[in-house]
Amino acid sequence: MIAPPDPTFMDMALRLGARGLGRVAPNPAVGCVIVRDGHVVGRGWTAPGGRPHAETVALAQAGAAAKGATAYVTLEPCAHHGRTPPCADALIAAGISHVVVAVGDPDPRTNGQGIARLRKAGIRVDMGLLGDRAADSHQGFFLKVRESRPMIACKIAQSLDGCIASSTGHSKWITGDAARQYGHMLRASHDAILVGAGTYRADRPSLDCRVSGLEDRSPQKILMTSDPPADLPRYWWSTVKNTEKNADCADQEARGQIIPVDADEVGHPCVKDLAHKLGQRGITRLLVEGGALITAAFLRAGLVDRLYLYTAPKLIGADGRASVAGLSVQDVMADAPHFRKISERTLGEDALSVYVRA
Amino acid sequence: MIAPPDPTFMDMALRLGARGLGRVAPNPAVGCVIVRDGHVVGRGWTAPGGRPHAETVALAQAGAAAKGATAYVTLEPCAHHGRTPPCADALIAAGISHVVVAVGDPDPRTNGQGIARLRKAGIRVDMGLLGDRAADSHQGFFLKVRESRPMIACKIAQSLDGCIASSTGHSKWITGDAARQYGHMLRASHDAILVGAGTYRADRPSLDCRVSGLEDRSPQKILMTSDPPADLPRYWWSTVKNTEKNADCADQEARGQIIPVDADEVGHPCVKDLAHKLGQRGITRLLVEGGALITAAFLRAGLVDRLYLYTAPKLIGADGRASVAGLSVQDVMADAPHFRKISERTLGEDALSVYVRA
Repeated sequence: MIAPPDPTFMDMALRLGARGLGRVAPNPAVGCVIVRDGHVVGRGWTAPGGRPHAETVALAQAGAAAKGATAYVTLEPCAHHGRTPPCADALIAAGISHVVVAVGDPDPRTNGQGIARLRKAGIRVDMGLLGDRAADSHQGFFLKVRESRPMIACKIAQSLDGCIASSTGHSKWITGDAARQYGHMLRASHDAILVGAGTYRADRPSLDCRVSGLEDRSPQKILMTSDPPADLPRYWWSTVKNTEKNADCADQEARGQIIPVDADEVGHPCVKDLAHKLGQRGITRLLVEGGALITAAFLRAGLVDRLYLYTAPKLIGADGRASVAGLSVQDVMADAPHFRKISERTLGEDALSVYVRA
Repeated sequence: MIAPPDPTFMDMALRLGARGLGRVAPNPAVGCVIVRDGHVVGRGWTAPGGRPHAETVALAQAGAAAKGATAYVTLEPCAHHGRTPPCADALIAAGISHVVVAVGDPDPRTNGQGIARLRKAGIRVDMGLLGDRAADSHQGFFLKVRESRPMIACKIAQSLDGCIASSTGHSKWITGDAARQYGHMLRASHDAILVGAGTYRADRPSLDCRVSGLEDRSPQKILMTSDPPADLPRYWWSTVKNTEKNADCADQEARGQIIPVDADEVGHPCVKDLAHKLGQRGITRLLVEGGALITAAFLRAGLVDRLYLYTAPKLIGADGRASVAGLSVQDVMADAPHFRKISERTLGEDALSVYVRA
């Protein structure tokens, strides 16, 4: 007698899986919960670096209790031999009798074969429980598999009227301490952060997770510029136009790694090309932290999947610096990039609204 | 045995009183609920035009049941003989034994004398129940009494990045139908709407309440311009710089009424002077509907008490038209007009956030 799928356990698996976001690329951040007679006997999530997989961890915790149990996994178990044996085989070997899967894995090495292998072994498999939430969590991994690019999120911290600095360039402080702290936490769930040359020069941002307990979660840092500064720290990647100049870069190691990127017709780095190259390098979740020209470039390319908008209850006026550079919108209904709000929270006197592409 | 004040009844009185907002100027929009043995026996609110008062209506409804009852009023009952006898006397004459007042009336003709008269007659009076909400509701009346000006609210309908139109001037439609309908309802609760010449020329706005059932609630209309257009409808007031030109206005009646306003040092109409003159004319609640220069002028003068921000989940970019013209902010923390969010609601895919001066 097998109990029907219970969303409570999948919710738990999703929360566990989310712990891996920003630490497991190019792998997906999966969560797994093993339940026997209504009790949780094993919990696992993809470990930093991508191994071991969530199922392996949860099965080890469950031990003999896995026999006859139900496994909730946020992504179809893998079917291919990589650095470790396939998770589908591990579930079979442990005697699991029921697997509940939130969403299928589009990776061509799995893509239904994990499910098929389980069913062939006589295991009951249920698909789609909390599937939308799982697809949201795995969005970066899915985009990498399907479009060879990361999920791209833009973070903007602005006044009510869309300014990120005053007319004299002052931006300390538009948003308050709680919003800034939350911004650091946001970094931890991304594989890489990207800023433009203007932001680099103006703020010399460290782009670290400066939140207690998350200091080691700082993502890779990417500077998008046609002129990498000589003092760029080693851990910055510098993406530049594909010109002769790059070939001359004397000390690439000390200046970080250079990713040459094609230029578009007006000589700007082509963000589509960059997104593709970051995908090839295994980045699944990219956080774009400005400035206004960089944000506009990603918007113009149709590459903004998600928007984190921190808004302070202040007005700066049209002589302030806009959060998004010109987009050449004419007809608002037809041309303006359009989003859908998925969440909102209060952070001190500021608000954080999260949007996805509409 | 008198029951302790019950906020449920004051909440009811506040909701009733709010029905009068936009229709009772220069009077306050008061609500009154009469309760006997836990039952509501009378309900009243200030009638359109300001008479009869809320207490008069509620007492008439209660009739003989008012004897020994408790009256909840959102503002101290008046103590002066105007077009009608004082409400304090009417409450005494009806045999009310307990009056719960949300907030005192700063009008020098009352200002504590209403309370004193009730207490002298042996009536128990409790003050301050839901006083903050009442002060909020009576803000326009209080500002008129204390500062000889109306409460001033600005309405802005914008994209996420603070644009009210595209680079080509298109603004149809940034916000959706629900937000626009709600904007019409907002008008009904104000005594007058003000727009600048640019908005008038661009949109020829009717500034009416185009919501079913509220058509007769359209406020007075004020155009702020130094050059009143010849075709200005009769019901528009035109406020202009105090120059020779005004004296020449040939047909003031057909062009609406002209309120001459002093110019500031750069030749702009002085909004402080205008606010004072509108207060003198009995306007207690003014809704400023733009454009960007007018909104900025009121912000620079420190005269924006309330902000109604309708935000569509779209981005237009810095080549769009900003919602607020330049404010010459330098240090964000010291200079930027600062608000506090008091409510938020979802209108279709848009959001309406309401702010008050921080």
